[in-house]
Amino acid sequence: MSTFVVVGGDAAGMSAASKAKRDDPDLDVVVFERGEWVSYGACGLPYYVKGEIQSLEDLVSVTPEEFREERDIDLRTGHEVVSIDPDGRRVTAEGANGEVTRSYDHLLIATGAEATVPPIAGTDLEGVYTLGSMTDGRDLREFVSRSRSAGTFEQPDRGPACRFLETCTAPVGIVGGGYVGIEMAEALAANDFEVHLFQRGDRLLKSFSEATSEAVADHLRRQDVALYLDSEVEAIAGEDRAEGVVTSDEEVPVGMVLVGTGVRPRTRLVEDTDIELGPTGAIATDAYRETTVPDVYAAGDCAETEHVVTGEPAYVPLALTANRHGRAVGQTVAGDPAEGGPIAGTAAVKAFDVEAARTGLVGDEAARAAGFEPVTETIEARSRAGYYPEGGTVTVTLTADRPSGRLLGASLVSEYGEGAVHRSHAVVAALSEGATVADLENYDLAYAPPFNTTWDPVLTAAKVLGGKL
Amino acid sequence: MSTFVVVGGDAAGMSAASKAKRDDPDLDVVVFERGEWVSYGACGLPYYVKGEIQSLEDLVSVTPEEFREERDIDLRTGHEVVSIDPDGRRVTAEGANGEVTRSYDHLLIATGAEATVPPIAGTDLEGVYTLGSMTDGRDLREFVSRSRSAGTFEQPDRGPACRFLETCTAPVGIVGGGYVGIEMAEALAANDFEVHLFQRGDRLLKSFSEATSEAVADHLRRQDVALYLDSEVEAIAGEDRAEGVVTSDEEVPVGMVLVGTGVRPRTRLVEDTDIELGPTGAIATDAYRETTVPDVYAAGDCAETEHVVTGEPAYVPLALTANRHGRAVGQTVAGDPAEGGPIAGTAAVKAFDVEAARTGLVGDEAARAAGFEPVTETIEARSRAGYYPEGGTVTVTLTADRPSGRLLGASLVSEYGEGAVHRSHAVVAALSEGATVADLENYDLAYAPPFNTTWDPVLTAAKVLGGKL
Repeated sequence: MSTFVVVGGDAAGMSAASKAKRDDPDLDVVVFERGEWVSYGACGLPYYVKGEIQSLEDLVSVTPEEFREERDIDLRTGHEVVSIDPDGRRVTAEGANGEVTRSYDHLLIATGAEATVPPIAGTDLEGVYTLGSMTDGRDLREFVSRSRSAGTFEQPDRGPACRFLETCTAPVGIVGGGYVGIEMAEALAANDFEVHLFQRGDRLLKSFSEATSEAVADHLRRQDVALYLDSEVEAIAGEDRAEGVVTSDEEVPVGMVLVGTGVRPRTRLVEDTDIELGPTGAIATDAYRETTVPDVYAAGDCAETEHVVTGEPAYVPLALTANRHGRAVGQTVAGDPAEGGPIAGTAAVKAFDVEAARTGLVGDEAARAAGFEPVTETIEARSRAGYYPEGGTVTVTLTADRPSGRLLGASLVSEYGEGAVHRSHAVVAALSEGATVADLENYDLAYAPPFNTTWDPVLTAAKVLGGKL
Repeated sequence: MSTFVVVGGDAAGMSAASKAKRDDPDLDVVVFERGEWVSYGACGLPYYVKGEIQSLEDLVSVTPEEFREERDIDLRTGHEVVSIDPDGRRVTAEGANGEVTRSYDHLLIATGAEATVPPIAGTDLEGVYTLGSMTDGRDLREFVSRSRSAGTFEQPDRGPACRFLETCTAPVGIVGGGYVGIEMAEALAANDFEVHLFQRGDRLLKSFSEATSEAVADHLRRQDVALYLDSEVEAIAGEDRAEGVVTSDEEVPVGMVLVGTGVRPRTRLVEDTDIELGPTGAIATDAYRETTVPDVYAAGDCAETEHVVTGEPAYVPLALTANRHGRAVGQTVAGDPAEGGPIAGTAAVKAFDVEAARTGLVGDEAARAAGFEPVTETIEARSRAGYYPEGGTVTVTLTADRPSGRLLGASLVSEYGEGAVHRSHAVVAALSEGATVADLENYDLAYAPPFNTTWDPVLTAAKVLGGKL
């Protein structure tokens, strides 16, 4: 009997394990997961902290018991793999009852990513959080509940008078204006905290278009989030607990700090092996997610993958890729080789009452860096027929390559519910097919007054950009 | 100076006139429109009748004055073109001041479509309406207002006691379960009429999937619309006014009847010319919308066009195609030949609180008729992450060709706001690019919990269908 060992029990790992076992029931499938949680939706954590999701268990799509009993997977939670021996084809894990060593025929490394923390003073203080794991989510929810049930902030003498909201209980700091920072701004503001968001660069969501960043920033300000752009955080002040965010300009008193400055792939396990990292610093893989060592695969947030526009390795650790590539590895291991396909770097985010999406190479700088001769255009259009009683504005940025007319990327933003995210799907499809702007302009997209203008905003953007090529 | 004459002043005609004049300001652009309205959004008429749009003028995107004064187009409203002389390159129109004959270098026929009425007794009675024109819309709105201000129906002695709604004022009949019938059911029900909808076939929206038809029918019933499926209307009863809808089974007393049984292209003008009709009965055109007579173009609801999946002529008279092809003709006439591109037969409809879209060849029957060996799958999926507080169900039907794996079409339905329509955009793009189901499955679509599940329902459908190929 062949053995498939999986290191890491979240999206990529459990997708692979499930698919492999389903396709080849004779396969012996073993998963080592160092924590207690498997197959959980980390993307839902901000909504748990916000209070819209009642239980952490709600984020779990399949429980450990279901994997074990219904899917016949040998899932070992509480087991951290501490070494891989590719020559001997075995891994060693440490659990509560000591070490376990398992031989494998195929191995998948799905160790995920971990939240990064900037190298500044004070990040180890109490009251400084990251949001990478279920445990992080639980800690943050407890902080919110504690503060709210106290009726006021834990250290009321530290905070300034609430500057923005009549109902706010205390100032909190968020370091980083990416997805996590923005989603947590919503989650904390919804719980009446006064949110101070610090972003090193001059705009939020820097992989989106400037128009998108500005729309989101404007909206956050209208939601009484205090934005500090171009603001490098130099330290988190405090004796035992976080008491302030220190920038070169000022110290902003806060009673809690969330650090959301990105993630890095968890690759320590492969450091002393022949499993190579790629140019992005994540584990290098081929189209089948096989690493530089035969029969050893890597998928999900620990691995890099190829970009559909550039064809080059890219590291964009997101949930769909982890699921898709994990599943592909499972199918491959079960004997039917499957490519998971490249990524387009597509991402979506809700920020209070706006929504935004991006895909491909957005903006001239990114496109030029990839060797293209870019043209970028941004348009604003009604989200529904102008005469229709509902509706808002969709802002669409498209980037294309001038010589070839090829579409390279897009960034969209609209009020929540006005379809920026779902409208990006057409662009993703176009990128996947190597389509030109002229191709996109001619797509026969669905139209009716409650859903768009006759020319959907994406088509209008293509029409305008096409005129500039 | 070269002259471009356009027959018909709605979407295709005015798009062509505007584009031609913009691209070549020296061009003499003349538009003959038999009515008073130009460039109006007929798709908005149901919402005007419903009362959500206050004025018919709101449906007009550009006024006649703007066309004349700002765009320098010689727009002759109230002028009906009565003959075309392709050999002499001239058209003759009748207006209030008699006949006008104009020579042309290029001619566009954009006469649109007209509502069909079944050949049954009683369609000429008072109280029988269609919804094709602005005038129709005005008449219907007046009927609604009159009935509502009377506090009850005009002929209260004719109607039965309201069977469905406590607040309803009177029963009305709708003949036809397509877009117009369904949108008008919503419009009339919103005004407290008791709606009886008669459909000849066994399902509504017959170009959509059965799953979509059933979902819409179920929803209409929950909205207290009385559905009569498999119900051929044999006559409209009444002396002077419509008083009932007669089927083979019964006579349903109603005080008004809306006939929404489809449209046919207005082609009378070309009957005695060499401008040929195609197999669909609409005016035949090539990729540039040029008819069988050189320099004579046809675009919009009077013309047929090629289908992106079959490559064959198709007649799907919808707004985007009219706008797009009109614009392409304008560009061509101005000296820069442009193809408007094929259609995918994409359509969207809102029905009370559900939304639906379809594109391409939907279902085995349609695909088989086009020479494919089809496989069709329908899935139901959550519209947003299962743990997210908002959300509903998206039902996706995909049809593919088994030997090639090529995607052929899709039909989607969801609660209104849960994205069936915008999600169809990815499928339209895929069809336009000749993509396979495997291609679609690998699209890196945007994901975040407020917008979809990790695998968007469209991807899930592709995954399931891919497993059957």
